[in-house]
Amino acid sequence: MTDPARAVVLLSGGLDSTTVLAIVRDQGFGAYALSFRYGQRHAAELDAAARIAGVLGAAEHLVLDLGLDAIGGSALTADIGVPKDRAPEAIASEIPITYVPARNTIFLAYGLAWAEVLGADDIFIGVNALDYSGYPDCRPDFIAAFEAVARLATRTGVEGTSRVSIQTPLIAMTKAEIIKTGRALGVDYGLTVSCYDPGGTGRACGECDACQLRLKGFAEAGLTDPIAYETVAAAGP
Amino acid sequence: MTDPARAVVLLSGGLDSTTVLAIVRDQGFGAYALSFRYGQRHAAELDAAARIAGVLGAAEHLVLDLGLDAIGGSALTADIGVPKDRAPEAIASEIPITYVPARNTIFLAYGLAWAEVLGADDIFIGVNALDYSGYPDCRPDFIAAFEAVARLATRTGVEGTSRVSIQTPLIAMTKAEIIKTGRALGVDYGLTVSCYDPGGTGRACGECDACQLRLKGFAEAGLTDPIAYETVAAAGP
Repeated sequence: MTDPARAVVLLSGGLDSTTVLAIVRDQGFGAYALSFRYGQRHAAELDAAARIAGVLGAAEHLVLDLGLDAIGGSALTADIGVPKDRAPEAIASEIPITYVPARNTIFLAYGLAWAEVLGADDIFIGVNALDYSGYPDCRPDFIAAFEAVARLATRTGVEGTSRVSIQTPLIAMTKAEIIKTGRALGVDYGLTVSCYDPGGTGRACGECDACQLRLKGFAEAGLTDPIAYETVAAAGP
Repeated sequence: MTDPARAVVLLSGGLDSTTVLAIVRDQGFGAYALSFRYGQRHAAELDAAARIAGVLGAAEHLVLDLGLDAIGGSALTADIGVPKDRAPEAIASEIPITYVPARNTIFLAYGLAWAEVLGADDIFIGVNALDYSGYPDCRPDFIAAFEAVARLATRTGVEGTSRVSIQTPLIAMTKAEIIKTGRALGVDYGLTVSCYDPGGTGRACGECDACQLRLKGFAEAGLTDPIAYETVAAAGP
């Protein structure tokens, strides 16, 4: 019996990356889950990532410290307030202050390093170009450009034999489709953490971009979000 | 009086990146020097980088922790011996075990993040495609591909107005030309550290790839390397 092919999966502990991990496991890969501690103001999502990696049978879960707080420039890494109750059209069109400079470039670079050491050709990332927060490094053009870098950057790149692929199974899905896909694979979304700014009770705020997109997704999927929220006002319509 | 344009300069404390910093300062940029602690077995080069940033008038020197030791796969980050006395043709053609997986991809990703926060368009890296150690991520194709990523990855990338440039002033120079360029700009190479495996005295080994390339460069430039070596045997021909 041979070992299954290996894949690196970027795992934040949120809804999207958890769905990706379930897809990767369903496809038969040995999943190597990679999470990052990058000066976030809350560690709840890393705790969630560890639980999810266990429940979904990841072969390994590696957490790397990035030190992005030393660079600053984002509400997620510096001492800047997280925006609340932004209008849906603003979420869709403006890059918010929660954007972390070059974040996915850095994440994918580490994913590439680990993939090379593991002998993995596939690097999975849960980016989404529909129901997303307007981040530049979630777009298909960006992913394609990074894949070109990845195929040149490593040992096999020199030999011209690199088969590295940046896999984005969620990129064309709505949030509702992502949730339905995960549910069909048995994902317990009660394990996942999406909120940028949970309250003192640890409950999701219900008002930040991430909460709004998540609640809208569950509503459109006709499903109930199993996690607890501080407010229910944002749960409509 | 307006502030000079800013540039991010990747600074290892070695001969090449020190020369790049001197070039950047000579071009009138405000230089933001970026160094990385990535599980190297020696900290001497980071001490050197700090001294060099001061002497060459960098506006700021930032040292980030990368945690690459958790990924492993290299003699520079894991517990693997550094090769000594490799033949020149092997240095030129084989990727050695000192290759760090995806290192320059990770370095440039952080450089991009800091450049975005600083409002800098120029990111300088001292890669060299002639007298180098055969690393895949030092080649012009790789640099061009990363520049394409950089122009898509940030806020200005979304707007289509990114002018980010990955600058490689040494890429077509021989090691001797690099040394002559630095000397003409007043660089004191006695401040720089190149050795992959310094001895207990802190002196360069004279036998690893980095020492061999450096000694060959000084010899071809007709100059004397001001640093001390453990051995002099490698200082020929």
